[in-house]
Amino acid sequence: MTMHANPDALLPFASVTNTGSIALVGAGPGARDLLTLRALDRLRAADVIYYDRLVDPEVLTLANPRALRVYVGKEVGAHAWTQARIDTAITFAALQGQRVVRLKSGDPSLFGRAAEELAAARAAGIPVEIVPGITAASAAAASLGMPLTSRGQIDRVVLATGTMMTGDAVANLSASLVPGTRLVLYMAMQHLARIEAQLLSSGVSPQAEVCILTHVSTIKERQLKCHLHGMAAAADGAKIANPALVIISLPMMSDAVKVEGVASVHPALAGL
Amino acid sequence: MTMHANPDALLPFASVTNTGSIALVGAGPGARDLLTLRALDRLRAADVIYYDRLVDPEVLTLANPRALRVYVGKEVGAHAWTQARIDTAITFAALQGQRVVRLKSGDPSLFGRAAEELAAARAAGIPVEIVPGITAASAAAASLGMPLTSRGQIDRVVLATGTMMTGDAVANLSASLVPGTRLVLYMAMQHLARIEAQLLSSGVSPQAEVCILTHVSTIKERQLKCHLHGMAAAADGAKIANPALVIISLPMMSDAVKVEGVASVHPALAGL
Repeated sequence: MTMHANPDALLPFASVTNTGSIALVGAGPGARDLLTLRALDRLRAADVIYYDRLVDPEVLTLANPRALRVYVGKEVGAHAWTQARIDTAITFAALQGQRVVRLKSGDPSLFGRAAEELAAARAAGIPVEIVPGITAASAAAASLGMPLTSRGQIDRVVLATGTMMTGDAVANLSASLVPGTRLVLYMAMQHLARIEAQLLSSGVSPQAEVCILTHVSTIKERQLKCHLHGMAAAADGAKIANPALVIISLPMMSDAVKVEGVASVHPALAGL
Repeated sequence: MTMHANPDALLPFASVTNTGSIALVGAGPGARDLLTLRALDRLRAADVIYYDRLVDPEVLTLANPRALRVYVGKEVGAHAWTQARIDTAITFAALQGQRVVRLKSGDPSLFGRAAEELAAARAAGIPVEIVPGITAASAAAASLGMPLTSRGQIDRVVLATGTMMTGDAVANLSASLVPGTRLVLYMAMQHLARIEAQLLSSGVSPQAEVCILTHVSTIKERQLKCHLHGMAAAADGAKIANPALVIISLPMMSDAVKVEGVASVHPALAGL
């Protein structure tokens, strides 16, 4: 146990015996072996597991076989639980004395609606912890063999979500795209054409290199390389949909290696 | 195995028998149980492990007990290997047929000098892979019980390094600090006073909330809460040095919960 790091969480875990607990557990990007040892421990100890659409079924095979598994959807549209319903369900189960795992793809702290669930648990006096996970950006870099940062070329990474891409949001994004930045957009496929158009009209180079990955780290992973200009059409042509990650690179040096066509990763790209 | 994700890496691993290999493995933030299952697998299979100063000794206890362990330092100043020497050493060992693990704290793709090592391995024709790790930002959020993003308040995270903080670099940083951003600075303690002064002079709110964490996820972890104005003095007073992470929050709503003094995390902060 290394819960010493969070005194607020440790105290209730140690001192309350009759109460259950909630762990918001990062399932990682998909591949079962990208789970952490701590996440594995929580899955094995769980009485009930609430999981979403994006959690790879592989990961669930590692859980306590006697744990109740509850699919909460979260797919946009039909058959999804509302966030409020999830908050209530996990809190209620924990109040019954159950060890609840709320299993989320990637890292619960990044675009995972963890704040709502933490607030609900705390309001009910239930001990709650976050177990971090490998976020898709890290897994994508590993798959590409291309680090997110590269000294002298990329010294900053911006993680943003594409789900709420109003005009203002894209304008804000382009403000951060100074040379030396790599932008990673989560769940951006739905608004990709708008994002491309607005980044271009904000002055981001049409030649900026783009990697789009879907189902990162799983057997369904696909990679697409293109430039900012034409990115949405390329993704459309390749029929890439969410869950996908869009990585836009703006290195400091303007003579960076060019991406040539849609191909697998060339070793020379490692230095981008 | 889920190496299918990276065709360039898979092919040599599968087809070459006499050659060794190099895995750039993320050790995570420190806590042994924040290692991934894949990282554990690579550590157990390693013939030789090159590790740096920031890797927690706990993690090494999980490795193949017969593996040679080589400390490459990387501390600024004395007893550190140069990057070129590390590149040569890992490549040479792999060419001898060894399974080489280059163990790096956090995620090798973030501020980990992975690009140089990948390039050296590829130039020598050695199969090389990145095994992602939990980055300190994710671990810090877990320790704080405060997600990095929070719908409607923080929808973007900027990861940057404080090691090369020239005036231009800080100016670039402040350009990205629009409302709705959380800035995470790695290894920034050395230049913290300059960063504070320049962010303030660029118009970032002096009341912006700041969390500084050192030795995240380990028994030595400490947390400091303050505002941007006075941040460097507070860190100095608390004697916080690298390895540390500085998290500066600029939520969209201006009536965000205020941080009160230097205290442990208040549940109300979860929604920041």
